[in-house]
Amino acid sequence: MSMRNAFNPYLLALDCPACGGTCDLSQPRNVCPTCGKPLVARYDLVRIKAEVPRDSLGRFGTDLWRYRAVLPFAADFPAVRLGEGGTPLLPLARLGDSAGVAELWMKAEAGNPTASFKARGLVMAVNGALAFGARGIALPSAGNAGSAAAAYAAAAGLPCRVAVPEDTPEAFILEQQAFGAEVRLVKGTIADAGKLIAEWCKAPDWWNVATFKEPFRLEGKKTLGYEIAEQLGWTLPDVILYPTGGGTGLVGMWRAFLEMQELGWLPKAIPLPRLVSVQVAGCAPIVRAFDAGESSAQPWVDAHTVASGLRVPSPFADALILRAVRETHGTAVAVSEADMLDAMREIAQLEGTFVCPEGGATLAALKQLRASGEVRANERVVIYDTGSGLKYLDAWRQALARRVPQDASA
Amino acid sequence: MSMRNAFNPYLLALDCPACGGTCDLSQPRNVCPTCGKPLVARYDLVRIKAEVPRDSLGRFGTDLWRYRAVLPFAADFPAVRLGEGGTPLLPLARLGDSAGVAELWMKAEAGNPTASFKARGLVMAVNGALAFGARGIALPSAGNAGSAAAAYAAAAGLPCRVAVPEDTPEAFILEQQAFGAEVRLVKGTIADAGKLIAEWCKAPDWWNVATFKEPFRLEGKKTLGYEIAEQLGWTLPDVILYPTGGGTGLVGMWRAFLEMQELGWLPKAIPLPRLVSVQVAGCAPIVRAFDAGESSAQPWVDAHTVASGLRVPSPFADALILRAVRETHGTAVAVSEADMLDAMREIAQLEGTFVCPEGGATLAALKQLRASGEVRANERVVIYDTGSGLKYLDAWRQALARRVPQDASA
Repeated sequence: MSMRNAFNPYLLALDCPACGGTCDLSQPRNVCPTCGKPLVARYDLVRIKAEVPRDSLGRFGTDLWRYRAVLPFAADFPAVRLGEGGTPLLPLARLGDSAGVAELWMKAEAGNPTASFKARGLVMAVNGALAFGARGIALPSAGNAGSAAAAYAAAAGLPCRVAVPEDTPEAFILEQQAFGAEVRLVKGTIADAGKLIAEWCKAPDWWNVATFKEPFRLEGKKTLGYEIAEQLGWTLPDVILYPTGGGTGLVGMWRAFLEMQELGWLPKAIPLPRLVSVQVAGCAPIVRAFDAGESSAQPWVDAHTVASGLRVPSPFADALILRAVRETHGTAVAVSEADMLDAMREIAQLEGTFVCPEGGATLAALKQLRASGEVRANERVVIYDTGSGLKYLDAWRQALARRVPQDASA
Repeated sequence: MSMRNAFNPYLLALDCPACGGTCDLSQPRNVCPTCGKPLVARYDLVRIKAEVPRDSLGRFGTDLWRYRAVLPFAADFPAVRLGEGGTPLLPLARLGDSAGVAELWMKAEAGNPTASFKARGLVMAVNGALAFGARGIALPSAGNAGSAAAAYAAAAGLPCRVAVPEDTPEAFILEQQAFGAEVRLVKGTIADAGKLIAEWCKAPDWWNVATFKEPFRLEGKKTLGYEIAEQLGWTLPDVILYPTGGGTGLVGMWRAFLEMQELGWLPKAIPLPRLVSVQVAGCAPIVRAFDAGESSAQPWVDAHTVASGLRVPSPFADALILRAVRETHGTAVAVSEADMLDAMREIAQLEGTFVCPEGGATLAALKQLRASGEVRANERVVIYDTGSGLKYLDAWRQALARRVPQDASA
């Protein structure tokens, strides 16, 4: 299969929102060849609108490949798949009462391969590596992305290298090693891991699949937006709270909602959900930039939190994240470590989900926004559990050691 | 909602396969009131056949509730749900080559709530407790069942008590405590935990949801059989290898295949899959009874294995398990601890799934049966990953410390 034939015929080009440039798919593409910023896929939405009614999605299964019309690969491309996507959107009646919102939902992502939302992006990045003819993949990771990358690389028969901070929980490292990945531990954060990858894994032998360093992780993550819309019967919530490390999912949902309006899968007139970027007090570069009215974020010094997925001091797609939040009339909120831990426990006790800390952060942020009035009692709200709490037992030990919150079983 | 109205109108009675007795749903039922053996639900399959074509299943969503016609609860019963079932049946091309079978699949159950197949049974048991008006639930567990029970109890607002062996991995215990369950550790195995539950949690205050000690866990587990058939386009595999602790899933699949034949969802003429009960050398009561030609199993003394779900010395439904294996012309196989650990690693390296030890056991058993010729090269085979490897990091440490198996990336 030639490189071009590997791709979806509806996929027209890769565009650069930063400089307005564009490039084709005739050769491997990581970032914009002109300015070095992230590339974003562009599809022929007019043709898809004419040829793919949303009622036909059921023909394509229940996982995220049901949206293959707007994904990068051709129908006959032998994609590596592990059953990613198609996760539940859980109605949270008990927690909605507690948080004071009329209708509360949680997009529960722990059921993905390797137990996190990272599977959505990495399945696309690894298939992209195959389509581009790469011989191995590499990435820095706070944990979950490395595990997802290693899993798909194993299934694809590609070597994989991962660099993670040295205090990454052992579960991630064992999982990556089980998949046969080479794992290196670095002092510092994912930013330092990124520096190691740049030296250790050079092109063209190693294809970099770091966040926004190749164009297809975003395509996988946008399926979150498609699923939420379809699961709500092709309507949208008022507010979505998203835990923001690299921010791919937040930017991806924004793109998905705009695409669905172009496709006629959603009415053009309805307002988009207000996207809320949720971070923690110990690492909140997006919140700081949002509050200061800036269009890009400065690196956060001394980043620290048990929510390892939120310990991203310098998200590469800062400008896109800030645009997505502002253009949807959303906001950015930092929560305290303590509120996050208590929220994890409240979700588990009231709703039976063993969430990751990042999931707890979205509930804690919702409570802040209810207190400030920025989210109203009659709104329909989506929070996120981005992955399993099983990889964060230290955080859970801390959460369970705190005072018992309000009696959940009463 | 009255007790009878809580149940599916197609649900006729609860039968006892051991003594031939039957009872209705007018009052809470644990086991056969006559002989104390397991009860099995009976539906009006003639009416379902007339009223529910299999093509209509899509109307009922993608999780296991799509099979609600053959599940215990009424359509308007406000069931507690967390998105259970609907897990992938993964094609394993690379591993099939390695194992020497034409077509190899893995039913991958880690994507369930609380990351294991136990969710299927416990969602039914907890909803059964609600339907019967129970005020709390209790069970002994090797780990995963306790976590699933605690999750659904939390979501239902019911108190939950769990007794587990004292060497149960900490992940299970933290998870159960996070859900607000009361957890007690006991010396010994799940059999000893069962004795504690009998004293600590007496009826009618506590509803016992131990394996086969109430009728509905089996109904949830049988959805494994429905899903496999539907995912294979309403055909069946030749062989299914199932890791057998309590054996609910094995008996459940057998029931499912027979029900689907009655319903006309499968042709009556096709042979059922040969069901293989997979156990480990350190705890193999079913294998021993099968080999000896017995119809029931004796308790296994000194049970030991890292596959905690297989450390069930005295499965309560031994007679039903042995019948299911024999009537489908299957067999029972014990694998060594070492072969199980190596198989875990091979699955991860070739197929990108971080399986639990019980999952590794099914591949190790397949290799034995290929070597003996009991499974042939041209057959279509299903192995099982019953839950996430994330709860078994000790086993993974052992697996990764062993010699490197054949190079998976070559």
